[in-house]
Amino acid sequence: MADVRMRGFQQRMEVSRFQALIQERVRPVGDEAVPLAEATGRVLVTQVAAEVDVPAFPRAAMDGYALRSEETFGAGAYNPLTFRVVGEVTPGRTFDGTVGAGEAVRIMTGAPIPDGADAVLMAEATSEADGIMTATESVTPRKNIGRIGEDIKIGSEVFAAGRVLRPQDVGVLASIGVGAVPVHKRPALTMLITGNELLKPGEKPRDAMIVDSNSVMLQALAVRDGAVVTEIRHLPDEREVIRDALLNAPGDILLTTGGTSVGVEDHAPTLIAEEGELLVHGIAMRPSAPTGFGWVRERPVFLLPGNPVSCLAAYDFFVALALRLMGARPQAWPYRRAEIPLKDRISSQIGRTDYARVRVNNGHAELLATSGASALSTTTLADGFVVVAQESEGIAAGEAAEVWLYD
Amino acid sequence: MADVRMRGFQQRMEVSRFQALIQERVRPVGDEAVPLAEATGRVLVTQVAAEVDVPAFPRAAMDGYALRSEETFGAGAYNPLTFRVVGEVTPGRTFDGTVGAGEAVRIMTGAPIPDGADAVLMAEATSEADGIMTATESVTPRKNIGRIGEDIKIGSEVFAAGRVLRPQDVGVLASIGVGAVPVHKRPALTMLITGNELLKPGEKPRDAMIVDSNSVMLQALAVRDGAVVTEIRHLPDEREVIRDALLNAPGDILLTTGGTSVGVEDHAPTLIAEEGELLVHGIAMRPSAPTGFGWVRERPVFLLPGNPVSCLAAYDFFVALALRLMGARPQAWPYRRAEIPLKDRISSQIGRTDYARVRVNNGHAELLATSGASALSTTTLADGFVVVAQESEGIAAGEAAEVWLYD
Repeated sequence: MADVRMRGFQQRMEVSRFQALIQERVRPVGDEAVPLAEATGRVLVTQVAAEVDVPAFPRAAMDGYALRSEETFGAGAYNPLTFRVVGEVTPGRTFDGTVGAGEAVRIMTGAPIPDGADAVLMAEATSEADGIMTATESVTPRKNIGRIGEDIKIGSEVFAAGRVLRPQDVGVLASIGVGAVPVHKRPALTMLITGNELLKPGEKPRDAMIVDSNSVMLQALAVRDGAVVTEIRHLPDEREVIRDALLNAPGDILLTTGGTSVGVEDHAPTLIAEEGELLVHGIAMRPSAPTGFGWVRERPVFLLPGNPVSCLAAYDFFVALALRLMGARPQAWPYRRAEIPLKDRISSQIGRTDYARVRVNNGHAELLATSGASALSTTTLADGFVVVAQESEGIAAGEAAEVWLYD
Repeated sequence: MADVRMRGFQQRMEVSRFQALIQERVRPVGDEAVPLAEATGRVLVTQVAAEVDVPAFPRAAMDGYALRSEETFGAGAYNPLTFRVVGEVTPGRTFDGTVGAGEAVRIMTGAPIPDGADAVLMAEATSEADGIMTATESVTPRKNIGRIGEDIKIGSEVFAAGRVLRPQDVGVLASIGVGAVPVHKRPALTMLITGNELLKPGEKPRDAMIVDSNSVMLQALAVRDGAVVTEIRHLPDEREVIRDALLNAPGDILLTTGGTSVGVEDHAPTLIAEEGELLVHGIAMRPSAPTGFGWVRERPVFLLPGNPVSCLAAYDFFVALALRLMGARPQAWPYRRAEIPLKDRISSQIGRTDYARVRVNNGHAELLATSGASALSTTTLADGFVVVAQESEGIAAGEAAEVWLYD
């Protein structure tokens, strides 16, 4: 690929082709075992089958009395029947003995059913005094008893491989005695934030210097997409410094911001070409045209524009996809979608993808006009964005557009 | 409130009344300042106004040449015009001097516009050799220049109080020189997991013992709703041990699981009544009837059923609401919603709220039948749940129901 500095992009890759290239090249980074307390939101590597029955023993599903159900037949408010209370069984304990004729054992929800009993009469249908329980309702056999394996059968598949674990899933894993789960590793991401003009987040802008706003934004987005941010390096626009970082920074994936275009200090693209493969440089997208992608020392490198809006859009279209593939996550964006009619026409060109920020007002999506990619404020004023696909010349005013909502 | 042990609930509070009571009693826990790297997802306490203009100086919006625009008028592919390149300005640097007649300064995106220049001619419309730049396009005044305050004006409100900060919002805060942001504190939650029958997550179930599955589930849910989980204590069903924890455990809010019903070992409700106020005990909801709520030593205490499905439903209806109020977050559930026709009728009773797990299959929501609240597996098989409101006797088969999707 020729050096394009100060000469403009010769060719711009279509968004769909770039995404297909990522899908082709990027692979999950590996597996690890994590304890349950850290397992929510992680992705299972293998199926999980139950090694135990749940429940593992017949247990009371209500507070009440364990007894022989047939002895309650005919009981009612006008025909109370009495039972001798011969003991009590609470969860975690067992009753030593057998429930005989005319007998009942006080039992709490979750406690094992004593031998001899075949049902639990709920507490609300009873009263007890001086060791005698009076039943004012009858109960049928097996009533209020949780059977062995009723919830989960031993040997059954509880979760399939690829499951993104929910809070309640982790509860189920605990209940079947699982301590640690095999999950896909989170890809480790290192960011190389380049630019002589950049101050670090938290500093005050001064003179011709501006504050790097991309690293804090990208960090939060990368965590959302299942990555671990290993390191954030702020680098000057010095060729050898950037080269060293591209070759030696830690992480499964690198991301640079700034220095990706065709200016004299845009070192990253030519460095990638020298040290590895520069697969993409310049894309048919507005904003985010100066986005790049390559491969150096066995790992993917994304070149994101320094402009914050371009950076956000390029992240969501390409880096989010790569991180999700590396973590074996579903590829779809986590944004909610809504069909909302457009207030204004959004113009595009065949072959180019547009990322248009919109604000939802009175049931209509209003385009947030901007002189270019520069206005980061449009992404904070916006409620979401509309993507004009590369096959489309635009979306007419009044037409329903699919709006991806930021929240 | 009378001791209901072994006598059943006398009255059951309606879900809407319980929720109103939480909204009345629970307040935000306080404020703190957090650095930007931790600010995404946090809630702003006050508005933030810009203390600087963005940009703070006129800057190049493209790579190219800063010059006097009127000198390019008439330039074209068949009428190339030439300029002497008198310098270069890159981001973070300034050009010492003034751009005069016939002169141009090479400029990179983001660099300050030199005095004398009033536009930037993009690099793609130029070529340069031996200190001479040839222009093949014209440019109009102010073209490709970002004006002072164009993105954000000094003094303007950037975010209103109550904003839940998005990744790009944190980027904007960095760019206006904010280092730390005043946000609502996360409520600190302590869980008291009671039950003699419980093993800790990670252990194998044995004999009459089962593994606590609630704490790992609740921990993930509480973090989702903006809480910090301070401590998880596993306690035996011993009255004085539980009393001590209710009085002395750390945290802004306590949550107990188990021991909330009307059995002999259900200590929590009577302890709350002795040491503070027991405001709710027993609710008109299926599952989750044995849920309670009270106030001990200036803090809310929720009593959740030990049964995992009841625990999940009671958490989502009441504890999630309290945590969101304490963290000043939007009260709505974070679940996506969809209108899906029911395959089966869901029956309920006027006055009672039902939480029915459903699986979405061929465009229909199928009720996951269960003998009661016991089957935790229904929440993992389910794609979501349908709420039958207290005013309703049920939802007919074929009718579209609002399904709250777990993912």
